[in-house]
Amino acid sequence: MKPTPMSPSDLPATLLAFGAHPDDIEFGCGGVIARETQSGRPAHFVICSRGESGTNGTPAERTAEAQKSAALLGATCEFLNLGGDAHLTHTVAHALQLAAIIRRLRPQIVLAPTLVENQHPDHVIVGRLVRDAARLARYGGVAELRETPAHAIASLLFYAITPDAEPADRSALLIDISSAVPAWTAAMEAHTTQLRTRNYVELQLTRARVNGLRSGVAHATALFPNDPLVFDSLAQLARTARQF
Amino acid sequence: MKPTPMSPSDLPATLLAFGAHPDDIEFGCGGVIARETQSGRPAHFVICSRGESGTNGTPAERTAEAQKSAALLGATCEFLNLGGDAHLTHTVAHALQLAAIIRRLRPQIVLAPTLVENQHPDHVIVGRLVRDAARLARYGGVAELRETPAHAIASLLFYAITPDAEPADRSALLIDISSAVPAWTAAMEAHTTQLRTRNYVELQLTRARVNGLRSGVAHATALFPNDPLVFDSLAQLARTARQF
Amino acid sequence: MKPTPMSPSDLPATLLAFGAHPDDIEFGCGGVIARETQSGRPAHFVICSRGESGTNGTPAERTAEAQKSAALLGATCEFLNLGGDAHLTHTVAHALQLAAIIRRLRPQIVLAPTLVENQHPDHVIVGRLVRDAARLARYGGVAELRETPAHAIASLLFYAITPDAEPADRSALLIDISSAVPAWTAAMEAHTTQLRTRNYVELQLTRARVNGLRSGVAHATALFPNDPLVFDSLAQLARTARQF
Amino acid sequence: MKPTPMSPSDLPATLLAFGAHPDDIEFGCGGVIARETQSGRPAHFVICSRGESGTNGTPAERTAEAQKSAALLGATCEFLNLGGDAHLTHTVAHALQLAAIIRRLRPQIVLAPTLVENQHPDHVIVGRLVRDAARLARYGGVAELRETPAHAIASLLFYAITPDAEPADRSALLIDISSAVPAWTAAMEAHTTQLRTRNYVELQLTRARVNGLRSGVAHATALFPNDPLVFDSLAQLARTARQF
Amino acid sequence: MKPTPMSPSDLPATLLAFGAHPDDIEFGCGGVIARETQSGRPAHFVICSRGESGTNGTPAERTAEAQKSAALLGATCEFLNLGGDAHLTHTVAHALQLAAIIRRLRPQIVLAPTLVENQHPDHVIVGRLVRDAARLARYGGVAELRETPAHAIASLLFYAITPDAEPADRSALLIDISSAVPAWTAAMEAHTTQLRTRNYVELQLTRARVNGLRSGVAHATALFPNDPLVFDSLAQLARTARQF
Amino acid sequence: MKPTPMSPSDLPATLLAFGAHPDDIEFGCGGVIARETQSGRPAHFVICSRGESGTNGTPAERTAEAQKSAALLGATCEFLNLGGDAHLTHTVAHALQLAAIIRRLRPQIVLAPTLVENQHPDHVIVGRLVRDAARLARYGGVAELRETPAHAIASLLFYAITPDAEPADRSALLIDISSAVPAWTAAMEAHTTQLRTRNYVELQLTRARVNGLRSGVAHATALFPNDPLVFDSLAQLARTARQF
Repeated sequence: MKPTPMSPSDLPATLLAFGAHPDDIEFGCGGVIARETQSGRPAHFVICSRGESGTNGTPAERTAEAQKSAALLGATCEFLNLGGDAHLTHTVAHALQLAAIIRRLRPQIVLAPTLVENQHPDHVIVGRLVRDAARLARYGGVAELRETPAHAIASLLFYAITPDAEPADRSALLIDISSAVPAWTAAMEAHTTQLRTRNYVELQLTRARVNGLRSGVAHATALFPNDPLVFDSLAQLARTARQF
Repeated sequence: MKPTPMSPSDLPATLLAFGAHPDDIEFGCGGVIARETQSGRPAHFVICSRGESGTNGTPAERTAEAQKSAALLGATCEFLNLGGDAHLTHTVAHALQLAAIIRRLRPQIVLAPTLVENQHPDHVIVGRLVRDAARLARYGGVAELRETPAHAIASLLFYAITPDAEPADRSALLIDISSAVPAWTAAMEAHTTQLRTRNYVELQLTRARVNGLRSGVAHATALFPNDPLVFDSLAQLARTARQF
Repeated sequence: MKPTPMSPSDLPATLLAFGAHPDDIEFGCGGVIARETQSGRPAHFVICSRGESGTNGTPAERTAEAQKSAALLGATCEFLNLGGDAHLTHTVAHALQLAAIIRRLRPQIVLAPTLVENQHPDHVIVGRLVRDAARLARYGGVAELRETPAHAIASLLFYAITPDAEPADRSALLIDISSAVPAWTAAMEAHTTQLRTRNYVELQLTRARVNGLRSGVAHATALFPNDPLVFDSLAQLARTARQF
Repeated sequence: MKPTPMSPSDLPATLLAFGAHPDDIEFGCGGVIARETQSGRPAHFVICSRGESGTNGTPAERTAEAQKSAALLGATCEFLNLGGDAHLTHTVAHALQLAAIIRRLRPQIVLAPTLVENQHPDHVIVGRLVRDAARLARYGGVAELRETPAHAIASLLFYAITPDAEPADRSALLIDISSAVPAWTAAMEAHTTQLRTRNYVELQLTRARVNGLRSGVAHATALFPNDPLVFDSLAQLARTARQF
Repeated sequence: MKPTPMSPSDLPATLLAFGAHPDDIEFGCGGVIARETQSGRPAHFVICSRGESGTNGTPAERTAEAQKSAALLGATCEFLNLGGDAHLTHTVAHALQLAAIIRRLRPQIVLAPTLVENQHPDHVIVGRLVRDAARLARYGGVAELRETPAHAIASLLFYAITPDAEPADRSALLIDISSAVPAWTAAMEAHTTQLRTRNYVELQLTRARVNGLRSGVAHATALFPNDPLVFDSLAQLARTARQF
Repeated sequence: MKPTPMSPSDLPATLLAFGAHPDDIEFGCGGVIARETQSGRPAHFVICSRGESGTNGTPAERTAEAQKSAALLGATCEFLNLGGDAHLTHTVAHALQLAAIIRRLRPQIVLAPTLVENQHPDHVIVGRLVRDAARLARYGGVAELRETPAHAIASLLFYAITPDAEPADRSALLIDISSAVPAWTAAMEAHTTQLRTRNYVELQLTRARVNGLRSGVAHATALFPNDPLVFDSLAQLARTARQF
């Protein structure tokens, strides 16, 4: 489960994604992950429980599903124990655990669940832990982190696992994932235990299709930046969702 | 006052900016204009009054100031009469006038004042007219526009002429204008009649400095997109304002 | 084009829907209309232009499409001329025209486009005219309306023709339209001229499917009330979208 | 203090209300409770402290007042110890305690304090615990809850104990409680220790009168749903607050 | 109906209030007016219609009621014709009419209806006209206003005639009007034609009582500033509504 | 580090400011503090860590800097240990510690960091602890606080340490600090260890200059009240930021 060692001088910085449960990253932003790894960017998943409290699937089954799914998306993955599924807590100790991973992998872009409160409480807790961890990772004097050099990430982007988790207080960014839909679909379908009772795959593909239609592409995923985006030139802004 | 003819196959698409008064574009987003023209993008200003109702400056003086200022920013400019300063109105006829300009110049990116209501009423009216015009320009059956082919712009971006005109309901995009500050300052100072009673130049440079400090650059200007931004890759999002 | 005469003592009050263009009601809330007429409620459409400025379709074609589509939904329809497509204006005279229709038909529930500004300007104008008209219809002293008795509607509900037209500042109500999807689809497909260049039918069905998945039903349409809902009993609130 | 055993096949599902202190439910939504029990719906209160830190009244006095008040509203009640008044904490263990109660009583509708942060911190904590508990109650694999079958509630509705606790980000639902005002007033007045220094009864009746005037009834209480409401028919929406 | 001539050197600046209909100022902020005139501040009302479209009362009756009511509040009043009740329009010409009044009376504080759209359309139009007029009054070059010197007001404050007209996007200021309730009540009751069908007096007193209870006083009226308040010292902020 | 004993009968009530780190109060609202102490109001700082985790400066250095800076602002200061820098937690025990200080000093006005979540997590935690403490301090029955009499503060005002910490959901109050800028600058510069890597002094002076330009004064600081402000008279509202 250890991530493949990276030599950051040779590769683009690793895309680092955090999820509360073994399927959160895949359902929430798996299309984005596949699109990035297809372009040669390494990706790594940190999964903060093994789904111990879910209605379907044992922790062992869910661990295996997550590993298979990450591989289908071209990503490595590791698991943390932050109290167990449905028992995650927002503590400084947990934030420091995540900060240590950020210092180890030194990503530019980090993905985490949105902070909208009306969703599974574990999702929000992971989102908050990641936001705190991204700050702690850059403070030079944090005693627990002294073994690794401080690291400031460039961007923290949130993904919404369900429609109700999309924040109303900030603008969505739409990522064109059209080329990655087959890989994404396969990765979602790898979570077979979770598909027994709910139609998550259709939910996610349908959401991505609505965003695709708005954007004039086949499928798109909405992400929500934690901070204002900075650009060098308007040329980077020459594509917006104005189809209707 | 006619814009230089463009041969769109040779050049990047013209950046088209609309303002209500002869100094709105310069004070609101002149740094962005200078940054873009320095990179070789043509820019054109449409100024919807000649400042007839202002406390200082005659229409002739203000026209000359605007022409000089546009030239300092590397832009061409033209003037419209939509009723006169402090008398602008939001009518379909005016929106069609702006739509005809959009069809003539076929820009990818259009800049307009924000739609926040608590500012000079002319600013909001121009913002709304531009938003409507950008739609009308793409509808094929509009009788008044039949002479020119329909055109769909790619992005409508708003600029805030004053701090109170910054919208609270959408995320700012910060554009690094550090290299363009000297040209921008000269262009603002060209509006000499307007600087008699209010310190607009310091206001704008100070606002840009706050945004620069947030972004880790010297100066930055906030813009506000009308529609969700669409991106091909996360690489385009690897810069956010996380300095504090 | 005259609506079928109603004898209000025998029937439930007519559901009255307003649209700016010949296809707005169908695309925005046609599933809700079909669901209601299937239950025996009369429905009537007021269409405020004949689509004169659209890219595709002549006014005559679009009128015929709207009539066919309304019939497929079990509704009657009439057309108004408020200046023509892309030329609608928000005037007291136009609001009074709509108010006179409200007084004539005496509906309990009225449907209109949302007031979100970032959509076709005609949509917002019709939404505002209907909101004003619903007030004017109940004021006893309005000179132009004296021929008909005042009427106070019970509910004004807004529908969103496109995803960007969904208001962020108020809660959605989700209407289970699962049984009405075939009729709704047929009604949308009757607008054949409009389907040449954009995939409106898929857009609307996909949006309704996302809302259905949230609600635990096949398809649902979001509506947005103008005013707080009043209930006699919590029993009326025992169904919410809590699937995820 | 044990709730009367229910035979769910014979009765409508119990209305389950949570409060932080012995008077929160009564002051916040006692009129709604009385209205529902008058119609034959059982109601049960879970009170998460005994008011140990209040300025007036001993825990024993306040327990007795709550019992008397619940009886006046036709409800049963039980008390929990989640740390004591002014010491409530938002922990997974506490959420699981509430989830166990939800599984035991299997309600359709659950009432809890709003999540607005600017009120007594205990109120927000109970609101958050209930929101989490309503999710945990339906997850099949939660170890601590395995003794009872999972249960998914239908609706989570929030009540605002004070004017400042009314959320601004979602629409109010107004419940006509006109027939329940005498029972509600008696239940509020049963909290005699709390009425020594503040005029809570007048505050609540005055708030309900404003909402009644808006709705065209004598008195109404505002509730705020956690999730979008789902309806079968527009007939359920034919009453809104449009008096002014 | 002419306002009493003022000699501004002797008196505090006139409090200038605008209303759309003959009773708007009284119902919306009459308690504030009475409180200020009791302290010796002159007040003047500008009433923008004579209630020609209301259900009850003739224009002559309503004019007389408004004059009597203004006198009871210690204010002078004048009437404008901006198209007539239910026919008010937001035009530059109307804004200039109001701006001319502002230049004539040179107030420091101006009161106008809030800009919340879901109320009588005339209310919003007057609010917008006043906001525009307060800007136009200070621009030196407006041709129509050249006869009177420019004037910049200090504060524009909005009042909410009904509960739904209270803006959610800005903080309320609460004005202690306890000493003015008898005069206010008498002024509201002077609008006898308007009290035939709706209980406006109770509505307003009840709203003021809720705000009084929040503030620890008998009655208070909420006002909403157009612009950020500026203070010299924190001593001016030492009273907030923290009763609950 | 003990605060000078106060004899509250002789002096205006102490202004009490809370900060998470040794420089938060100075950077966030030092100009306001200096303005108040210059007028003879005592001020006291409660600093909830010694900056143990910062990139620059030892705890001893930072303690000395804070003491020097407080003295330059005319304030006394004390330090708390709530877990240490980057380890602050929101617990009832910590809130009670702060409440005990409020009971000891009996302030009318309390200053705390804003509650905007996207800033250093310690800032938000101190803001929340102060908000809770201000409530706990007034409840008569809190066992841990029984040694000191209950105390109700008059106003809780928030300050924003960075631009991103300014809340979007409530109106700013602008305090004219023009006369205090030299003392404020000196106090900020006393935090020499913190100025090695970031230009905090320029950030704060630039923010205050933008607010000064809006207000028509040299410099102003924005504060954000927790509760609606209550006023006796409109005379207190006769100054707003209307320069542009």
